[in-house]
Amino acid sequence: MRRIDLNADMGESFGAWQMGRDAELMTYVSSINIACGFHAGDPSVLRRTIEKGILAGVKIGAHPSFPDLQGFGRREMKLSADEVFDTVLYQVAAVKGVCEALGKQLHHVKPHGALYNMAARDRLLAGSIVKAVERIDPDLVLYGLSGSHLISEAEAAGLVAASEVFADRTYRSDGSLTPRSEPDALIADGSESIDQVLSMIVNGTVTSTTGETVQIRADTVCIHGDGPHAVEFAARIREALSRMNIEVG
Amino acid sequence: MRRIDLNADMGESFGAWQMGRDAELMTYVSSINIACGFHAGDPSVLRRTIEKGILAGVKIGAHPSFPDLQGFGRREMKLSADEVFDTVLYQVAAVKGVCEALGKQLHHVKPHGALYNMAARDRLLAGSIVKAVERIDPDLVLYGLSGSHLISEAEAAGLVAASEVFADRTYRSDGSLTPRSEPDALIADGSESIDQVLSMIVNGTVTSTTGETVQIRADTVCIHGDGPHAVEFAARIREALSRMNIEVG
Amino acid sequence: MRRIDLNADMGESFGAWQMGRDAELMTYVSSINIACGFHAGDPSVLRRTIEKGILAGVKIGAHPSFPDLQGFGRREMKLSADEVFDTVLYQVAAVKGVCEALGKQLHHVKPHGALYNMAARDRLLAGSIVKAVERIDPDLVLYGLSGSHLISEAEAAGLVAASEVFADRTYRSDGSLTPRSEPDALIADGSESIDQVLSMIVNGTVTSTTGETVQIRADTVCIHGDGPHAVEFAARIREALSRMNIEVG
Amino acid sequence: MRRIDLNADMGESFGAWQMGRDAELMTYVSSINIACGFHAGDPSVLRRTIEKGILAGVKIGAHPSFPDLQGFGRREMKLSADEVFDTVLYQVAAVKGVCEALGKQLHHVKPHGALYNMAARDRLLAGSIVKAVERIDPDLVLYGLSGSHLISEAEAAGLVAASEVFADRTYRSDGSLTPRSEPDALIADGSESIDQVLSMIVNGTVTSTTGETVQIRADTVCIHGDGPHAVEFAARIREALSRMNIEVG
Repeated sequence: MRRIDLNADMGESFGAWQMGRDAELMTYVSSINIACGFHAGDPSVLRRTIEKGILAGVKIGAHPSFPDLQGFGRREMKLSADEVFDTVLYQVAAVKGVCEALGKQLHHVKPHGALYNMAARDRLLAGSIVKAVERIDPDLVLYGLSGSHLISEAEAAGLVAASEVFADRTYRSDGSLTPRSEPDALIADGSESIDQVLSMIVNGTVTSTTGETVQIRADTVCIHGDGPHAVEFAARIREALSRMNIEVG
Repeated sequence: MRRIDLNADMGESFGAWQMGRDAELMTYVSSINIACGFHAGDPSVLRRTIEKGILAGVKIGAHPSFPDLQGFGRREMKLSADEVFDTVLYQVAAVKGVCEALGKQLHHVKPHGALYNMAARDRLLAGSIVKAVERIDPDLVLYGLSGSHLISEAEAAGLVAASEVFADRTYRSDGSLTPRSEPDALIADGSESIDQVLSMIVNGTVTSTTGETVQIRADTVCIHGDGPHAVEFAARIREALSRMNIEVG
Repeated sequence: MRRIDLNADMGESFGAWQMGRDAELMTYVSSINIACGFHAGDPSVLRRTIEKGILAGVKIGAHPSFPDLQGFGRREMKLSADEVFDTVLYQVAAVKGVCEALGKQLHHVKPHGALYNMAARDRLLAGSIVKAVERIDPDLVLYGLSGSHLISEAEAAGLVAASEVFADRTYRSDGSLTPRSEPDALIADGSESIDQVLSMIVNGTVTSTTGETVQIRADTVCIHGDGPHAVEFAARIREALSRMNIEVG
Repeated sequence: MRRIDLNADMGESFGAWQMGRDAELMTYVSSINIACGFHAGDPSVLRRTIEKGILAGVKIGAHPSFPDLQGFGRREMKLSADEVFDTVLYQVAAVKGVCEALGKQLHHVKPHGALYNMAARDRLLAGSIVKAVERIDPDLVLYGLSGSHLISEAEAAGLVAASEVFADRTYRSDGSLTPRSEPDALIADGSESIDQVLSMIVNGTVTSTTGETVQIRADTVCIHGDGPHAVEFAARIREALSRMNIEVG
């Protein structure tokens, strides 16, 4: 029986500000990536999100970011290799420690936002993240963009990597995501999104914007928590996977 | 042979700003309390300070604070019991995780600044700190003001507590520190400071500002790292202890 | 013809996080208090909120706070008199300058959250705020809790003060607000709230929780922007004032 | 009689952390650039620095930065044009307002660190800064790297621009600064630095690292406040200018 992981970013509220529909989404995914306080989250949001994750029985991961609350970690920043290492080390350590204090092992690490995107294309940056994760615990799984430098650096270091694919993003013929600045970057239609996901899981391929069939590895699918139809889409994809006898987990 | 711990706050630089003479002081103390990023310190300062502490062979502790960089954690803040628990949990988790990633066990926790002072006199606040430390690791030693609520709450919870005394602060007849707002709060003379410390270690007593002999428990002595004569004083106290055959550690 | 000011806190989004229904509420109030970046707001939210306020034709005020994003400025902090002065000076200067750059005069200052509440009962703290406002521009109106030290200190300094009353909070026989910790602190019923407001405006009195008639001065009414019925309530109070021939402005 | 402005960055302490020898340096320069709280400085440091600047009789400028305390504004960040505009607008507004509250007009704006360097080579970024300064007050002088896009954009918008040159940095044959990553980027020798400055002021030329004579405009010279010999160098350059009958101001 085939199996796929569904992951979602969570714990992105901050102080008095709410974000995301964590509780609802938690029932559809198999792993969650928790903000560490650098782009979102605070110590109380973090603790409560981990408690909810434990109750929901999902795998818990840390979601480290550049230190940029105001920009939600989405703005590129130029940090030295040491700064990246130290920043990831600190954030993963914090989430891991709170997780263990609440009785659960940390399962994975998925970089957030600009750090994720830059690590996909910058081998040195990817290497700094990998070193930090490895130093914290070599059994942690590193989630990264399928086909990216983050995946190859993780595997070169002997870490288990999970290749992430997107349901609602289109792909180019070299296997990379169409940049959001392009008009055809997003798949608005839910059924198309689901078809793309199923093809990636079952056939290991995706059809590029230019019509070519591209090989792609799919270990985990990113389920977005924002947008008006996020929870509805999560339910639909879950149902489609069930019909195809693909286990989520 | 008698034995006393000497502790100092360290890792209180932040970004481009330097503070303290950590490297020099490290050779005189037996335990260090490392800022966790909430009143001082950042992920890079934290990692480097832990590395130096490992090389120096000192016991390493976390030094959690209210979230107040600008006020250096010295301004009182009114947090809920949950907020205190979560804030301490996060900070200790971060330092513990970075410490272990570098190959060393975390030894203790000492609250910083206003959190330390408020926890000395506020039983509920002390209880929230104790719960967080206990949840992270019940083998962590909790450093607190000798005779304070933080010590009694820690012991009531079954934690090992270290009663902290001060060389350069005067005591009142009820065993509390003379508030800094009073004219006779500080002992300016180095020899007097050393005499006070020795009396607290050897006799378990201190002479109050009103001349009374007061019982006091001294497990660890706080060595300040700021001030022009901090390092010189650390050397003198170390020498005095050696002459008295009191081991530091 | 009687006249009353209706004010609401606005610009309390931060980065990616949205808060409040500013655009809708803007049509019902006559003055807005804009977060300055210390408890909420950021430079972009601030600029956009001022632009909306200018379009809506409302009076624009600064809403300075303790520096506490995570606590939304609702947690008490102990700052020195100088720190309060400097903190308020900076925040009001920033909002005033952005306001003027966009072609509008700043009209008033209303302290936020814990700073507002502490300034109501602490004469020295109130005095530091008053000094900062006066130094920036003695023509600024200072909004404060009716009957509080903030009002009396402002008037003693020769500033114009606006006495603020609350529609949905009950009052005690000494004219102070029933603390939120008490069970009868809030008026849940919309009609009762409106009756209380009308009585305060027309008669200058409010009925205390113990049934007494208490003198109260009402220059401005605080309209809350949060809660599910905030906009609806704003519309209702506006309508009730119109029926009573009380002008809003 | 020739005249040159000497400027220095000041007010870069933060909370408990001290930086720079502002008081000493203040006596040698004619204009100061004050940190606005985004890379350094806080409301209290800002107010005190302005007070000192007023006493010293120097021209006072705002020194806005990317929002990055931990990185001291030295790390490149990718902000949108609107974010740059809003960020600069807010910071200049705050310093201008505090300045005027203390009885002094704001004289100029000089971007800090990564914002300064990126604005030198990125015309769009330079344009956003120029628009913000112009919106605040078109009489403000904009300080920027001599020959850079920031200068040309400022002049295109009708602002008065001050072309800044460096005493201790070498220049390339195209008039740009040798990047700090190159071995010959810095002039270590004080006499050589002074000769370079005098040549730029008197002849309007500088000798590049490849030996060519390059035209350069020098309206203001940056005097660094850090480093062990900063104050001594400021005194020497002041003396050299005096010997050459070049007025500072």
